[in-house]
Amino acid sequence: MTRPTSPTAYRTLDPAGIRAFLAAQPALAARLGGRPDEWRVREVSDGNLNNVFLIHGPAGGVCFKQSLPHVRVDPDWKMPLDRTAFEAAYLRAVRPHVGALTTELLHFDPDLFALVIECLDAHVVLRQGLMQGGDWPEAAAAIGRFVARATFRTSPLALKFEDASTLLAPFARNHTLTRITVDLVLTDPYHAHPRNHWLSPELDTTVAAFRADPNVRRRVGQMQARFLTCQQALLHGDLHTGSVMVAAHDTRVIDGEFALPGPIGFDCGLFVGNLLMHLFATPTPQGRTRALRDIGQFWTHFRQDFTTQWTDAVARDQAGDAYAAPLFRDDPASLHQVQARFLDEVETDTIAFAALEIIRRITGYAHIADFDVITDRAARAARQQAALHLARDLLAEPARIPTIAALLALAADRAG
Amino acid sequence: MTRPTSPTAYRTLDPAGIRAFLAAQPALAARLGGRPDEWRVREVSDGNLNNVFLIHGPAGGVCFKQSLPHVRVDPDWKMPLDRTAFEAAYLRAVRPHVGALTTELLHFDPDLFALVIECLDAHVVLRQGLMQGGDWPEAAAAIGRFVARATFRTSPLALKFEDASTLLAPFARNHTLTRITVDLVLTDPYHAHPRNHWLSPELDTTVAAFRADPNVRRRVGQMQARFLTCQQALLHGDLHTGSVMVAAHDTRVIDGEFALPGPIGFDCGLFVGNLLMHLFATPTPQGRTRALRDIGQFWTHFRQDFTTQWTDAVARDQAGDAYAAPLFRDDPASLHQVQARFLDEVETDTIAFAALEIIRRITGYAHIADFDVITDRAARAARQQAALHLARDLLAEPARIPTIAALLALAADRAG
Repeated sequence: MTRPTSPTAYRTLDPAGIRAFLAAQPALAARLGGRPDEWRVREVSDGNLNNVFLIHGPAGGVCFKQSLPHVRVDPDWKMPLDRTAFEAAYLRAVRPHVGALTTELLHFDPDLFALVIECLDAHVVLRQGLMQGGDWPEAAAAIGRFVARATFRTSPLALKFEDASTLLAPFARNHTLTRITVDLVLTDPYHAHPRNHWLSPELDTTVAAFRADPNVRRRVGQMQARFLTCQQALLHGDLHTGSVMVAAHDTRVIDGEFALPGPIGFDCGLFVGNLLMHLFATPTPQGRTRALRDIGQFWTHFRQDFTTQWTDAVARDQAGDAYAAPLFRDDPASLHQVQARFLDEVETDTIAFAALEIIRRITGYAHIADFDVITDRAARAARQQAALHLARDLLAEPARIPTIAALLALAADRAG
Repeated sequence: MTRPTSPTAYRTLDPAGIRAFLAAQPALAARLGGRPDEWRVREVSDGNLNNVFLIHGPAGGVCFKQSLPHVRVDPDWKMPLDRTAFEAAYLRAVRPHVGALTTELLHFDPDLFALVIECLDAHVVLRQGLMQGGDWPEAAAAIGRFVARATFRTSPLALKFEDASTLLAPFARNHTLTRITVDLVLTDPYHAHPRNHWLSPELDTTVAAFRADPNVRRRVGQMQARFLTCQQALLHGDLHTGSVMVAAHDTRVIDGEFALPGPIGFDCGLFVGNLLMHLFATPTPQGRTRALRDIGQFWTHFRQDFTTQWTDAVARDQAGDAYAAPLFRDDPASLHQVQARFLDEVETDTIAFAALEIIRRITGYAHIADFDVITDRAARAARQQAALHLARDLLAEPARIPTIAALLALAADRAG
C-alpha cells in the first residue's frame, strides 16, 4: 500500500504527540474545536494489534489509530506497520457503497501509519454489548447490508474485470495480516502448535476427536484453498462482533485492516460464527433467542440486498463482466436462477467458515471474551464443547446442514 | 509488466533492423555464428497479434517476436505493446518447472517489446500438422504434463500464499489480452455482436438456438465468473493447438502472452476444445481415432502428473498453504480424496471451457483453420453444426457429461 515517504519518520505517538499531530491538521483541529490543551486524549486500545485513542474537544471528537512495529499484546511478535494503510484503503474502497454503515476516513498519515476516523461516542462494541445482555435488533440486518454492498460493488459482478482487478490488486499484498488468518484461523487449530490453547483437560478429548476426523481435515483443506484462490470480492477479512459498533439505530463496521480479495462467505462466516458462539455463551433464553434471530436477520438481509443490487445493475446495464448483462438482461428467470445458485454457494462457504471461526476462537491462539461470562469452569467447558461439536458437524457433514435455516434449527436444538 | 525505459525507443523492426538488433547482443550473435550479413531473416508471422521472424546463421537459429502497436491482422485495432513482456514473464515463471516442454527465453528487450527465443527448426505447429494428417502420439501426453507442472507449481497447493500472490500479481495486470478472452471467448458469441460471423445461413438456426437456450446462458455466466474469480494458478491463457509445436519426440508450448491467474480447467479446456474441433473436422477415421486418443492421453497424463507432484510435495513437506501439509501428511487416504475432488472440479471446468472454445471458434471473431480442409461448404457446415451441438450439450446438460470419459464416448458417437 502507501509507502512511507521517509521510513525514519515513524514514531509511536503518546498522548502529547497525538495532540500535536492533530493540531497540525487544520481540518481535524477545527473538528475538535478550541485549543489543543483543551482536548481530552483517552486510550481505548482493545484489539490485539494497534494503539487506539479517542480525542475530544469542545466541538467534537475523533478516533486516532496507529500501527505499532509489533503485536500490541505481544511486543516480541514483530510486525510491519502497513496495516493501517490497508485499513485506510479499505475505507476508501467501500465507504462510497456502504455510507454510514462504516466510519468516515478523516485523515491518513503514511509516515506515522496513523489513521484518523470519526469518533463513535454513542456506540458500544457489539461483542461487549451482547455480553452485557444488550439488544440491538437492527444491527444484524445492517451488517448483512454492509457485506452485501461492500462485496457486490467490489466484485466483477458489478465491475468491468479491469476495474475489479485494479481495485483488488493492492489488497492482495496484505500479506502480513493474511498470514495471521491462514495460520491462526485455517491451519494451526488442526495440528499441534504451541500457540494453541483451550480449557484443558476438559476439552482435550473433543479437540483430539475433531483433529483425528478425516472428514473435518478434508473440509478444512478445501476451505484453505477456497480462501486463497476464490477472489470474488474485496473482503473486510475480520468481521467478528468486535469489529462492529452499535448504537440504538446506528451500526458501524470498523477495523478493516485485514482487508483482502477473497470468497464472500468468509466475511459472512466470521460474523455468523461469532453470533453462534454468543448463542452458546449467553446465559439467558432471551439472549439465545436474540442470537438466533440475529443470525437469521443477517443472512436474510445479506441475501436480499445482494440480489437486489445485482438485479438493479443488470437492469441498468451497469453489470460487470461476470454474468454479463447481455446474457441476462432479457431473461429475469435465468438471472434469478444464477443469483440463487451464486448465493447458495456463498451460503455453503459461510457455514464452513463459521465452523472454522468457532474452532479457532475456542482452541486456537486468540480466544473471544463471550464465554468469560460463564464463571463456573465446568459449565464454561460444557458450553464450549457444545459449540465445538456443532462446528465439527458443520465441517464433517456439510450435506446434513446445507443452509443457514438448517444451521439455525440445529444450533437452537444444541444450545438449548 | 516491464515498462519501457524510454517510450520513444520503440520502433517496429524490419529484417535489417532485426539483424542489427541481434548483432548488438553478443550471446545471440554467437548463437547464430558468422557475420550478420550471412544471417537469413525470414518472416513467419502466423498468429493474429505479433510479428515473428526466424533468423539463421552458420551456427544456429533464433526466433524473434515483436509486439506491434495494433493487432497484426487489423491495424485499426490499436493495442498496447506489453504483450511480449507478459510472454517473457510467463517463460521465466514456468520454464523452471516444465523444462523442454516450452522454449528457452534468450533475450527480452523492454524498449522494443522484442522477445528472442530458441528456434524450433525441426518442429511444426500442431494444428497445421494435424490438418495435414500427421500423427504425434507423444504430444498430447506432453501437453498434459506441461499443464500439470506449470499450474501446480504456481498455485498455493505448492507455494506459500505470499509467494503465489507475488508470482501471480503482475499477470493479473495483463488486462489487454484478458479483455480479448473475456469478450471474444466468454461473451460475444452469446449475443449479437458485429465481430461474430459463421457459415450463414447454414448455421443460423443452430446459433439462434444455443443463444436462446437459458441453460446455455446460465452456464456461460457461471464460467465467466469462474474465469474471473477462481485464481488457482498461473495459466498459459491461450493453449490451443496453434500454441503447440511438435517434432517426433519433442513437444513445446509457445505463445504465453495471454498468461493470467485463473482456473486450471481453462488451459485444459482450450486444448481439449481444439482437439474436439479437429475430431469433427478431420476427414479420416484414423484422424478421428487419433483425436479421441489425444484427448484421453492429455487428460490422463495431466491428472496423473498433477497428482504425483502434489503427493510428492506433501511427502517432502514442501506443500503450500492450501491443503496444508500438517493436515494430510499422515493420512494418504484423505490426501487422495481431496486430490480426486480437486481434479474432478478441474475436469468439470475443462468440459465447460472446451465447449466455450468450440462455440467461439465457429461462431465468434477468430475462427480456426481445421475446418478449411473440408472444401465442400455443405459438408463443412454439417461438421461445424455437429461440433456446435456437442458444445451446446456440454453447457446445457453438464450432469449428463460429467467426465472426460463420458465426453469421449459422446464425441466419438457424434463425430462418427
